[in-house]
Amino acid sequence: MKASQFLISTQKEAPADAEVASHRLMMRAGMIKKLGAGIYTYMPMGLRVIRKVEAIVREEMNRAGAVECTMPVVQPAELWQETGRFDKMGPELLRIQDRHQRDFVIQPTSEEVVTDIARQELRSYKQLPRNLYQIQTKFRDERRPRFGLMRGREFIMKDAYSFDRDAASAQRSYERMSQAYRAIFDRFGLRYRAVAADSGAIGGDLSEEFQVIAHTGEDAIVYCPDSDYAANMEKAEALAPAGPRSAAAEAMQKVATPGKSTCADVAALLGLPLDRTVKSLVLATDETDERGEVLRSQVWLLLVRGDHDMNEIKVGKVPGLDAGFRFATVPEIIEHFGTKPGYLGPIGLKKPVRIVADREVALMADWVCGANEEDFHLRGVNWGRDLPEPHAVADLRNVVEGDLSPDGRGRLAIERGIEVGHVFYLGTKYSKPMNATFLDEDGKPKPFEMGCYGIGITRLPAAAIEQNHDERGIVWPDAIAPFTVVVCPIGMDRSAEVRAAAEQLHDELAAAGVDVMLDDRGERPGAMFADWELIGVPHRVVLSDRGLKEGQVEYQHRRDKEPTRMPLAEVAGFLRGRLAA
Amino acid sequence: MKASQFLISTQKEAPADAEVASHRLMMRAGMIKKLGAGIYTYMPMGLRVIRKVEAIVREEMNRAGAVECTMPVVQPAELWQETGRFDKMGPELLRIQDRHQRDFVIQPTSEEVVTDIARQELRSYKQLPRNLYQIQTKFRDERRPRFGLMRGREFIMKDAYSFDRDAASAQRSYERMSQAYRAIFDRFGLRYRAVAADSGAIGGDLSEEFQVIAHTGEDAIVYCPDSDYAANMEKAEALAPAGPRSAAAEAMQKVATPGKSTCADVAALLGLPLDRTVKSLVLATDETDERGEVLRSQVWLLLVRGDHDMNEIKVGKVPGLDAGFRFATVPEIIEHFGTKPGYLGPIGLKKPVRIVADREVALMADWVCGANEEDFHLRGVNWGRDLPEPHAVADLRNVVEGDLSPDGRGRLAIERGIEVGHVFYLGTKYSKPMNATFLDEDGKPKPFEMGCYGIGITRLPAAAIEQNHDERGIVWPDAIAPFTVVVCPIGMDRSAEVRAAAEQLHDELAAAGVDVMLDDRGERPGAMFADWELIGVPHRVVLSDRGLKEGQVEYQHRRDKEPTRMPLAEVAGFLRGRLAA
Repeated sequence: MKASQFLISTQKEAPADAEVASHRLMMRAGMIKKLGAGIYTYMPMGLRVIRKVEAIVREEMNRAGAVECTMPVVQPAELWQETGRFDKMGPELLRIQDRHQRDFVIQPTSEEVVTDIARQELRSYKQLPRNLYQIQTKFRDERRPRFGLMRGREFIMKDAYSFDRDAASAQRSYERMSQAYRAIFDRFGLRYRAVAADSGAIGGDLSEEFQVIAHTGEDAIVYCPDSDYAANMEKAEALAPAGPRSAAAEAMQKVATPGKSTCADVAALLGLPLDRTVKSLVLATDETDERGEVLRSQVWLLLVRGDHDMNEIKVGKVPGLDAGFRFATVPEIIEHFGTKPGYLGPIGLKKPVRIVADREVALMADWVCGANEEDFHLRGVNWGRDLPEPHAVADLRNVVEGDLSPDGRGRLAIERGIEVGHVFYLGTKYSKPMNATFLDEDGKPKPFEMGCYGIGITRLPAAAIEQNHDERGIVWPDAIAPFTVVVCPIGMDRSAEVRAAAEQLHDELAAAGVDVMLDDRGERPGAMFADWELIGVPHRVVLSDRGLKEGQVEYQHRRDKEPTRMPLAEVAGFLRGRLAA
Repeated sequence: MKASQFLISTQKEAPADAEVASHRLMMRAGMIKKLGAGIYTYMPMGLRVIRKVEAIVREEMNRAGAVECTMPVVQPAELWQETGRFDKMGPELLRIQDRHQRDFVIQPTSEEVVTDIARQELRSYKQLPRNLYQIQTKFRDERRPRFGLMRGREFIMKDAYSFDRDAASAQRSYERMSQAYRAIFDRFGLRYRAVAADSGAIGGDLSEEFQVIAHTGEDAIVYCPDSDYAANMEKAEALAPAGPRSAAAEAMQKVATPGKSTCADVAALLGLPLDRTVKSLVLATDETDERGEVLRSQVWLLLVRGDHDMNEIKVGKVPGLDAGFRFATVPEIIEHFGTKPGYLGPIGLKKPVRIVADREVALMADWVCGANEEDFHLRGVNWGRDLPEPHAVADLRNVVEGDLSPDGRGRLAIERGIEVGHVFYLGTKYSKPMNATFLDEDGKPKPFEMGCYGIGITRLPAAAIEQNHDERGIVWPDAIAPFTVVVCPIGMDRSAEVRAAAEQLHDELAAAGVDVMLDDRGERPGAMFADWELIGVPHRVVLSDRGLKEGQVEYQHRRDKEPTRMPLAEVAGFLRGRLAA
């Protein structure tokens, strides 16, 4: 490819709304162009990256036995009503009416459509297992689209769906996808982790996120440097500390803490470490009748250590809270605790409350909590002596660096990541409501056991940039670079020798299947180099009159500090060897 | 590819709403699956065809110097308001509101978006010419979607847009695309014609349709078997017959033609050939003031020969009618002709009317027309003697078989076609209203000269089937077949020898880059053959125990009546040779 025949549109400045590096750099490198909030044209330079991502995904999906199809972008509402998602999904689901006032949606995913295909096409267990995927435009009407392709409204996703006759077979299909995802992410050339994720109501361990490591990532990834344990924050279990509980050393006393309503303020006032304090969270559950009228409510008090953070997903697994909970209202809190939030605690309640202690809190001694009286706390509190043992003990909190790894093989570390892939065992979540069944060997209809498997095709380049950039621009891994090699001739318009050498090198590399760009625009060296460093082409060869007199060119990898001189005659072979590696 | 790893879902019956062969066969072959009216999932078998079409289009577009990008499916209304299309386009334009009640459209084409890109990215004449294209999902909310992929609502289109600094350069860009389209359609392996089409108000000859020949096609294609002349019906010029007009032989006389209001009925009654009669069409034009109020109207009488059809596009080019016309109302007709439609003619008018004669009519002698009196016609009518020469003579009619070719090199023939591609010179139709300018060499801003170039990616397979099918199913050309070769082993589950030979042949062909399918489903021969004949794979090799005992296999092209026996050892080489040809 020659630059004069391509559309290169680098910009000096990024738009003001570009908050993250990938957004800024993709805009400046002319890879994307904003059309509306969260809606981008993939410009030629950006589309080349996307197509390379697609090709890798497609190859590995096919290798894993998945079969590609393409489902419509505009989907009739009827199917979405069968699963209830048409009503349940919020305004993220873009709804349309056609000229006959029939309801449609723009697909955000395609579970309904693929399940509809399966219930028509896969009639016998003999046709199973089966995995159908597509690489197709999706739309989610995000309330606040931002970060360029990272959280856009229109995007391209690879979504795959597996259909199996039973849970054991579904698990094998899941494993096959999980392995295919490792192959895909390995080929991208990015640092990533496959992390265990929460699989929601279905249970089991069949949910993994594929996170590209980047310190700007929105997600915390928990891992153990001494083992292969990795999970997201919701899934990472905080083990119970090695018991037993320390003996009580202090007497309980009420202390004045005027205006100090946070654990940090109270600890500072009392001169105690934060990990001696206990935070209170008040929740409520409602028992309803058939019509949804509330019959009675139960108030809950959840306790975690002052330096820990409550994790809502974990809270939602506590027996009694697992059917749904809400925050307690202020009137409910006053009714049960006798005071407003800020000074709450488990002692001196006005009405009974179910108390759940985090595993860590359950083993604490001499701790501090609110006194259920404004401007007062209690210190020296001890379980069993000052209050009964909690009704339940559970893992309620986010893990922190240094916690024991759940696999018992070291201590946890935390880094940040960007979720680009997700493999998920669905069970019969869609097949049952849609009555999607096949005839099993015994002649009886059974619902499909399903899995779904996504990769954010247009998010991946953004994640790659978050991980790989410097002050000059993007640094693409070879596998997904828009061009792998750029040939930069200096003074091509003045020197026939430079022109001939540059064109010959370009043609030789192109003939060898290298994705090479020849910059024949006639830009000055500084501007030319700046463009390609911004765009992030990993390998650069510079040809100049002076160098060619000695038969030399300059090679520089995008990460190299300095160029390396080498003979013109050798550079093509050198590049081929380096790219094959 | 092995059939057991693919999704083959052939059907015995086509749905009742499948009216045309391509729709029936794509449904029966499991290539598409209906999701809603005019909305289809491209199933794995169909998607393979679409991907091959895309690949050919992409290669040739790139070769012609066009650069690929991808514009959003969901587009903000603002740009569409700039050109007025948001209001002017009818309900075919699918309109949506997002969660913030902002207006969007689902793209039916992308002129507005690409022009917006150009006005931002192409600032100097040095960046021109430029051609941007995409292969992307489109939506047109057809009132009556039908014929499967032929007239769907959601479809894939390749749309390209060229930007040039002046009309001469734009013409070269147009020619380059026109040539690229020939290369593309040649590669599809279909019989097609590039036909001149009407370029509307812009004038000039820069509009061509690419029509796949099929007797079920909706469009009439006019061509000259003795030259390369080809045009669509609107564009094909009906030349003036070689003059001069014959001398009058009859006296004009009024004849009773009770109840005979059509030319055919009158000709039969009078025992004259239909080409001696003349049809009348009454139109009107309105002169309006600035507010659109009608100041005065002009009534027109257009005359074509009784056996000819009026062409509305041609009528719209007659001076005086080219700013817009309408059909005259019955009161206007009575006011000017003194009678109701059915017996109208140019003689004995009550009020003046502008008379335009078709070129053919202008040279007729002794003709028949209405007498402007119910149940009466005139015969033996002659220009100059019975009425003045017409105010104007013009080409008003559709050409018919046997007309002189406009290039003077033979006589015209007519066949039917399906429009799959269109190249069109737009001029400044979009750049002017959108103020899309570049700085020319003289430092002044000028609007881009544009062209647009479409190919119906998902319509092409349907057109290919209309052209190539028989009672057993589809017959794909090699280039776009879902699989090029199918290997059909008989009794693979019983015979290790058959299995081994089939797998080896499959692997050998696959390694040579042949797109080969091995049917390892274990179907009985009849069902297996019927499936592949329905699906339309062009080359089939059958392996059986009996044949292999003699080292023989059977080869059959989808169009062959009988199989050809050949040695197993030679079939791979034979196929490679045949496919390379």
